[in-house]
Amino acid sequence: MEDTTFPEVVVKEAENTWGRWWGAAPPHSPTHPALHFGAIPATKKLLCFEVLVANSKHALLPGGLDVLILNHIGYSYFNYFNGDVGHIRKLLETNFLSYVAMTVSALPMLKESEGSIVVVSSIAGKTAIPFTAPYSATKFALDGFFSSLRQEFIIDKVNVSITLCILGYINTENAVRAVSHAIQDTPAPKEECALEIIKSGVLRRRELHYPSRTVGSLLLLRDIAPDFLDSLMRRAYKVENIRRT
Amino acid sequence: MEDTTFPEVVVKEAENTWGRWWGAAPPHSPTHPALHFGAIPATKKLLCFEVLVANSKHALLPGGLDVLILNHIGYSYFNYFNGDVGHIRKLLETNFLSYVAMTVSALPMLKESEGSIVVVSSIAGKTAIPFTAPYSATKFALDGFFSSLRQEFIIDKVNVSITLCILGYINTENAVRAVSHAIQDTPAPKEECALEIIKSGVLRRRELHYPSRTVGSLLLLRDIAPDFLDSLMRRAYKVENIRRT
Repeated sequence: MEDTTFPEVVVKEAENTWGRWWGAAPPHSPTHPALHFGAIPATKKLLCFEVLVANSKHALLPGGLDVLILNHIGYSYFNYFNGDVGHIRKLLETNFLSYVAMTVSALPMLKESEGSIVVVSSIAGKTAIPFTAPYSATKFALDGFFSSLRQEFIIDKVNVSITLCILGYINTENAVRAVSHAIQDTPAPKEECALEIIKSGVLRRRELHYPSRTVGSLLLLRDIAPDFLDSLMRRAYKVENIRRT
Repeated sequence: MEDTTFPEVVVKEAENTWGRWWGAAPPHSPTHPALHFGAIPATKKLLCFEVLVANSKHALLPGGLDVLILNHIGYSYFNYFNGDVGHIRKLLETNFLSYVAMTVSALPMLKESEGSIVVVSSIAGKTAIPFTAPYSATKFALDGFFSSLRQEFIIDKVNVSITLCILGYINTENAVRAVSHAIQDTPAPKEECALEIIKSGVLRRRELHYPSRTVGSLLLLRDIAPDFLDSLMRRAYKVENIRRT
C-alpha cells in the first residue's frame, strides 16, 4: 500500500518543475498553501481543500492549479476479511469518495489551466490480492470511476488528463510496516516511484505501472492466465505469518 | 446494465436443478421464501434477507442454502458525470455494500453446504465505459472485493466458490430502456444470459463472460491495447443522443 506522504526529492523536483500542484506534500511545508496537505488526516485534507477553493483560488493559488495529485488513504488491516461492512463504508469515504469530491472541487481550475489529475492506486486495485478485500474494493472503485471520467473528458473535449498510478510494493514506511512480515519481495524505492508519479502526470499518460516490469507482467497475466496469476499471488505471501485478529 | 429480475425460464431451470437458492427471482413467487426477492427494492431485499437469516434458516430454508445470487442494482443515470458525490455514495450502498452484507449473513450456511456465491457485474465493471462513472465505480468495487475474498477462501480452505459474471449489453427491459438510444450494438438474449449465469455458478467458475466472444475480446484488448479499446468504446456510442440533464 502506498504512503500518504512524498519524500524530499519529490518536493524539490516539483518545485523545479512547476509551482502549482496540490494534494500530497511533506509535513514540513506548512507555510506553503499549495504544499501542506500531506501532514494532516485525509478527511481534514478534503475539508481544507474545499474551504480553500471556496474562499477564492486567487487569494491562495494566485497562479491557478495545474496538477491535482490524489494520494491519501485511510487505515485498513492486512488480514482475512473480518465481516465488518462498516469498515469498508468508512474506507470508501477516505480512499474513494474524497478523491471524487476533490476532483469536483478542483475541476473548474483544472479546466482553466488544461491541467492534470493524478490518482495513486495499487496493484491491489487491478488484480486479486488476498488479505486486502476492503482496500482492493476502494482502489478498484477509483479505476472504475476515473477511467470512465477520462472517456467522458475526451468525448466532451475537456483537456484535463487523468493518470492512474498502479504501484507495486514500495519501500514507504507505512507499506513496509503493514506487509513486510507477509511479503517475500523486495520493495521498490519510494524516491524513484515518486518521480515516476510526477513524470506520468506531467506527460499526461493514461496509466503508470511501477515497478514497470513487475506490474506490467502481472496485468498481462491477469487476462491471459487469471488462474495462474491467482495462484502466483497466493504463493507470494507468507500465509503462516497472517494471524487473525 | 443488467435487470433486477430473472426471466421465467431461469426459475424453471432453477427449480429443476436445485431447490435452495437465494437472491434473485421473479415477482410472482411471493409464497416461496427462497424465491421472493426479485420483486422488492434492493434495500428491502437486504433487510428481508437478514431478518430471515436471523430468524433461523431451518424454519424458512429447511434444506439450507446452496447458492447466493447477487444481482440487484440501484438506479443510476447514463450520462456525463454530474458532480453529485452523494449519488455515488448511495449507489455504493445498493450495488456494492449490500452485496458484502448479504455475503457475510449467508456465509455460515454456504460454508455448511460448500455452496456458491454468484456476483452479477458488467463489462462496465471491468473496463472504461463513458457515461457510467458512478455505476462503474460500484461494479469495479465488486471485482476488487470478491476477487480478493476468493483468494482468501482458497488459502483458508473455505470451499465456497465465487463467480463474477461480466455481462455485455443484454436485452432486459431496464437495460434497453436505459441505453438503447445511445448504443449501436444488438443486445444479447436475457434468457440465454440467465442460464449462463446459473451454469457458471453451478460449475463454480471463476468468471462468466457473456456474450463470451464480445466480452472476451474486450478484456483481452484492455491490457494489450488499452488506448485502442478506449477509442473503440467511445465510438460504440451515439454521443449526439446523450443530452445533459
